[in-house]
Amino acid sequence: MTGRLARIAEHAGVSEATVSRVLNNKSNVAEETRAAVLTSIDVLGFERPSHLRSRMGAGPVGLIVPELTNPVFPLFAQVIQQRLAAKGFTAVLCTQAPGGVAEEDYLPMLLDHDVCGIIFVSGKHAESNSDISAYQKLLAEGVPIVMINGHRPEIAAPSLSTDERAAVALAFDHLVQLGHERIGLATGQPRYVPSIRKVAEFERQVAAAGMEKLIEQTWFTVEGGELAGRSLIAQGATGIICGSDLMALGVMRAATQLGLTVPTDLSVIGYDGSDITKYTGPPLTTIRQDVATMSAAAADALAELVKGHPQPSGDALFAPELLVRGSTGRAPYLTGVRHDPRTEAGGVG
Amino acid sequence: MTGRLARIAEHAGVSEATVSRVLNNKSNVAEETRAAVLTSIDVLGFERPSHLRSRMGAGPVGLIVPELTNPVFPLFAQVIQQRLAAKGFTAVLCTQAPGGVAEEDYLPMLLDHDVCGIIFVSGKHAESNSDISAYQKLLAEGVPIVMINGHRPEIAAPSLSTDERAAVALAFDHLVQLGHERIGLATGQPRYVPSIRKVAEFERQVAAAGMEKLIEQTWFTVEGGELAGRSLIAQGATGIICGSDLMALGVMRAATQLGLTVPTDLSVIGYDGSDITKYTGPPLTTIRQDVATMSAAAADALAELVKGHPQPSGDALFAPELLVRGSTGRAPYLTGVRHDPRTEAGGVG
Repeated sequence: MTGRLARIAEHAGVSEATVSRVLNNKSNVAEETRAAVLTSIDVLGFERPSHLRSRMGAGPVGLIVPELTNPVFPLFAQVIQQRLAAKGFTAVLCTQAPGGVAEEDYLPMLLDHDVCGIIFVSGKHAESNSDISAYQKLLAEGVPIVMINGHRPEIAAPSLSTDERAAVALAFDHLVQLGHERIGLATGQPRYVPSIRKVAEFERQVAAAGMEKLIEQTWFTVEGGELAGRSLIAQGATGIICGSDLMALGVMRAATQLGLTVPTDLSVIGYDGSDITKYTGPPLTTIRQDVATMSAAAADALAELVKGHPQPSGDALFAPELLVRGSTGRAPYLTGVRHDPRTEAGGVG
Repeated sequence: MTGRLARIAEHAGVSEATVSRVLNNKSNVAEETRAAVLTSIDVLGFERPSHLRSRMGAGPVGLIVPELTNPVFPLFAQVIQQRLAAKGFTAVLCTQAPGGVAEEDYLPMLLDHDVCGIIFVSGKHAESNSDISAYQKLLAEGVPIVMINGHRPEIAAPSLSTDERAAVALAFDHLVQLGHERIGLATGQPRYVPSIRKVAEFERQVAAAGMEKLIEQTWFTVEGGELAGRSLIAQGATGIICGSDLMALGVMRAATQLGLTVPTDLSVIGYDGSDITKYTGPPLTTIRQDVATMSAAAADALAELVKGHPQPSGDALFAPELLVRGSTGRAPYLTGVRHDPRTEAGGVG
């Protein structure tokens, strides 16, 4: 301990008593001296006491996410916040429930609180033709920003996305291998960058396989999935690739309502890979986003920007994984089963 | 518009031009004048323009929650954050993943950022014998705090909890009405206030019904539920009341692994009522916490404390609801079924 104090004192050009006062957060130290001691601690590679760590961040970091009821967003929020905390930054959470405070209304609040930067998860930037002047204004004012899942090449900021094309290709291949010949895509509104990318890859795959193009674009919710699912089932789809896990739950609900069994009559693939998909009935085959890696990269990029180190602003793509579970199976015309004949609950018997 | 400007100007004793400058966030207004105008806007009951709303909060509010993978916590976080935002407060999110930053380490970071108050959801205060000196210190320093789900009478702060006793009584009655005579309780560690309350009510119910006391206390996770479930099933329980929805998922997993069908062989009741329980296989009967009402009350209490208005610090209990879905049914000795005879996957045929 003495060695450490002495080295810090020597490096900062102050007495050991002063270093001790800074470490113990005493008030009788000039701010300049205090800053010098903290810099020496950092430069010498010592760890700051926890009560001093937050000084490393210039201010809190804004963290703008959509509503937290889709479980992939709490996961992003948690990993980003913790990664930031480990670097001494606090995160101001801004969620956007329908009818609540919107992204653009949070920005003045965040600037009022002197945020040192903002991370946007699936925000306005995820809409291909949205007004991006708010982002340009932040950049012009020197506020570092980082985008997740919604690349807009016009915004000169780090942009990290799951590779939607790879995701659709993984899902499509899986269904083809199971013998499906009528494959549908249920995803969100065409204005979203992730939808655009999914649709583009799906169209490519369908054309290459010589299949009919079955696409329904509703919303990324359970209700959106149910609506799209009913339509795709009516069009004869035996396998459906969904734009979110919640949509997949909706497609499964539509199938049940129509008397179909998953996966005997209909195979369903989700997207996001949130934990809940392990516990659905049946457990959901899904494409998992690498939330941990993306979140860490976003927090790291923001921290570097805050330090004044420029970061690449290209379109960084993160590879998704296919998790095969119980909601996908052989195409029904291969097994001869049209629907499950079990009729336990009342009825004929 | 003119009428509004004039009234504000008159009330604040300034010119209409000054009011206009404040409303448009111009910089050439003395801070005192600005504050006077804003006060007049509030006093006269006008709504502030959105860019001025954050001025109402003295600083951000700390929001300390456990990890966000249990979906009830993102729900608390979202509702509290939005309710705070509507009042002009930003929320600094602090999550505590295992091995990450802990509650006590966040406090100095939050104080560094001059939080005007802190809301704790299921924090250290939820442990009946934890060290509460950090809370006492906050109160001594004049930092308003509000507790959710973990009442400690020693802490002089508003404390809002779901009525755990009512929750267990609702679940127990439901199982008794379905004919169950061996009912188990699977909940978390005995040191948590919610566990203590659940166990106390469960013991009361069991004694009144003349049943054997079947209790397993593990963790509030899926794995904890699986462990407790296996043990309670081995002890002959036909209905299990769980301390969280995640535990209920674990109990259902244990049942499946033991060749039992839910609810034919085993009835399972969750706790929390998070959205995912609608989509489990089968959909989960669960006790729903009134997260919306509790979160709003917590945000409101904190806002009042920040304004200097004392709030009651008693044990405020919020009524839970029983949502009956597919995971509970008649006791197996009433239907004569021991387990589901279907053996689709391979085996005898």
